[in-house]
Amino acid sequence: MSRSWEANVRKVVPYVPGEQPKLPNLVKLNTNENPYPPSPAVRKVLEEMNTDDLRLYPDPAADALVDAFAEVYGLEKDQVFTGVGSDDVLAMSFLTFFNSDQPILFPDITYSFYDVWADLFRIPYKQIPLDENFVIRPEDYTIRNGGVIFPNPNAPTGVLLGREQVRSIIEANPDVVVIVDEAYIDFGGESVIDMIGTYDNLLVVQTLSKSRSLAGMRIGAAFGNAKLIAYLNDVKYSFNSYTMNRTAIAAGRAAVLDTDYFRETVEKVINTREWTKERLRELGFEFGDSMANFIFARHKSVPAEELFAELRKAGIIVRYFKKPRIDQYLRISIGTDEQMQRLIGFLKEYLA
Amino acid sequence: MSRSWEANVRKVVPYVPGEQPKLPNLVKLNTNENPYPPSPAVRKVLEEMNTDDLRLYPDPAADALVDAFAEVYGLEKDQVFTGVGSDDVLAMSFLTFFNSDQPILFPDITYSFYDVWADLFRIPYKQIPLDENFVIRPEDYTIRNGGVIFPNPNAPTGVLLGREQVRSIIEANPDVVVIVDEAYIDFGGESVIDMIGTYDNLLVVQTLSKSRSLAGMRIGAAFGNAKLIAYLNDVKYSFNSYTMNRTAIAAGRAAVLDTDYFRETVEKVINTREWTKERLRELGFEFGDSMANFIFARHKSVPAEELFAELRKAGIIVRYFKKPRIDQYLRISIGTDEQMQRLIGFLKEYLA
Repeated sequence: MSRSWEANVRKVVPYVPGEQPKLPNLVKLNTNENPYPPSPAVRKVLEEMNTDDLRLYPDPAADALVDAFAEVYGLEKDQVFTGVGSDDVLAMSFLTFFNSDQPILFPDITYSFYDVWADLFRIPYKQIPLDENFVIRPEDYTIRNGGVIFPNPNAPTGVLLGREQVRSIIEANPDVVVIVDEAYIDFGGESVIDMIGTYDNLLVVQTLSKSRSLAGMRIGAAFGNAKLIAYLNDVKYSFNSYTMNRTAIAAGRAAVLDTDYFRETVEKVINTREWTKERLRELGFEFGDSMANFIFARHKSVPAEELFAELRKAGIIVRYFKKPRIDQYLRISIGTDEQMQRLIGFLKEYLA
Repeated sequence: MSRSWEANVRKVVPYVPGEQPKLPNLVKLNTNENPYPPSPAVRKVLEEMNTDDLRLYPDPAADALVDAFAEVYGLEKDQVFTGVGSDDVLAMSFLTFFNSDQPILFPDITYSFYDVWADLFRIPYKQIPLDENFVIRPEDYTIRNGGVIFPNPNAPTGVLLGREQVRSIIEANPDVVVIVDEAYIDFGGESVIDMIGTYDNLLVVQTLSKSRSLAGMRIGAAFGNAKLIAYLNDVKYSFNSYTMNRTAIAAGRAAVLDTDYFRETVEKVINTREWTKERLRELGFEFGDSMANFIFARHKSVPAEELFAELRKAGIIVRYFKKPRIDQYLRISIGTDEQMQRLIGFLKEYLA
């Protein structure tokens, strides 16, 4: 019996998140999580937390976390915004800054939520094709638009755009907000956070999910001039003031301040990635020079869908997108050395 | 120097959250927090948490928490949805269910975010005046509409609508979704969760912020038939899959399952409220028979704004809304017995 209230329900194509299967001994290389635990300071702060205070609302400004970012990045507090993962920060930024009749621009192959948020907020958009090597061409981002957003390195390709090319996109678009989504920047790129003082239309977004091993805590941040950040805060406060809970604020602060642990962990992931690249190349895989914590690779002869299925049977989960232009690629997150050895070992045998 | 990107920024009137001042010895009765800490099980679960797992994304379905709600309320898992506080759950429900050209209906004096979310999602709405005693008249909710939402008990009035009156509103609106926002139901009302089996257009929303003392963890839930909940999940997954972090899921589960502690705490708050009502009445205050963890009261001769300011000087913070119809009222959250004695003690002296 279908009732008429269903006529007014928003019908969507639900996003299917990367699998989170609960099998033992699984090699889980499908959601770009960090293989190493978060800083020991995170454990300490949660163990020592005054849980009686959980009866009180959290600080809506998340000051303790904002302060930590400001300290570590050498910024003023009013240049920092935080949210429930970079997804929340990005969605809020779309809502705040992309209100033009002109389309916003982003790559055709990119993070899969950009078009979703644009549709959600009824923002017109135009997807700009990457070149045949999956590289963003800055000259394509000079057409009239209502804003620009791209990840750097790009996802799911891992390809990094150099600082001066990022700068050229920002400079070509002084009349709109340019968002650089640096979710993966710590694995080999160089952030443009230092440019926020120069370009008042630049917003840089980062996350603690990858390089700080805190995917489970949902913490993201945006950096920009004080005016941009104030606009973001106004919109956020206007419809949901208390988003980050007390544990997230405390754990995030601890992780951000432990810069030594952060650098060590990132270096380990980078070393493992470079080792994996060499092995994959020897096995006949082709890929751009990923600067992220994953490799986006195709095999020169074996179909990606086949490899995906066979890996799965062997208890190794990677990500496969059945989409135009990328349906011959696998996105392989960088795990521990041991996990990558299992991956390479299986592929060696399977492809032999 | 105003740049043209500012022309496309969404300009809003930012919501000003209830103050969270950090003064010692403050009597904080302004944000309806529970004066008692959360269940000891919450402390235990956070202390024993495997923080290494924080590197992994949380379960997007928050199964552990959904299971706890299902168990305690005698529901099926597919009748439960959870989110980052009831604000998140309500906003998601607006987005999912209110897509008609007809206006949605809610009271003129009610939770201050309803019109904000309606504006945000471009949902037409009509505010229905409460009667002169701040009571919802069910017969006013029979006009053509695109959906109905009201808190029960209402906020900030605390006035409860009886179950049969709630039923009459649901029955009068079979062709739209009716949302009953039960944020404060545990302090003296009776939930209509049991009616979700009878009415497929009924969605009941609750929160752990009040009766479970977890405002600091941001946990809300919605209960409805499996079809309604599936629609909600589809919309949620379509644009932000991972919202509740691992600590929230674990802490929420622990709090929901500790029903003994919950009942004890709620009873203490109710007893303190009833004591406070008597004292306030003796001091010349007038108010509806609040069934929430706050009292919405006006003094028969002293202006609310004056009382608000004087209380503040004495280190007692209550909430004052400078809005039509309610600008002679103070909303006083129920604290501990000691805190309420301080409030009454001050008022006795000031009004003498």
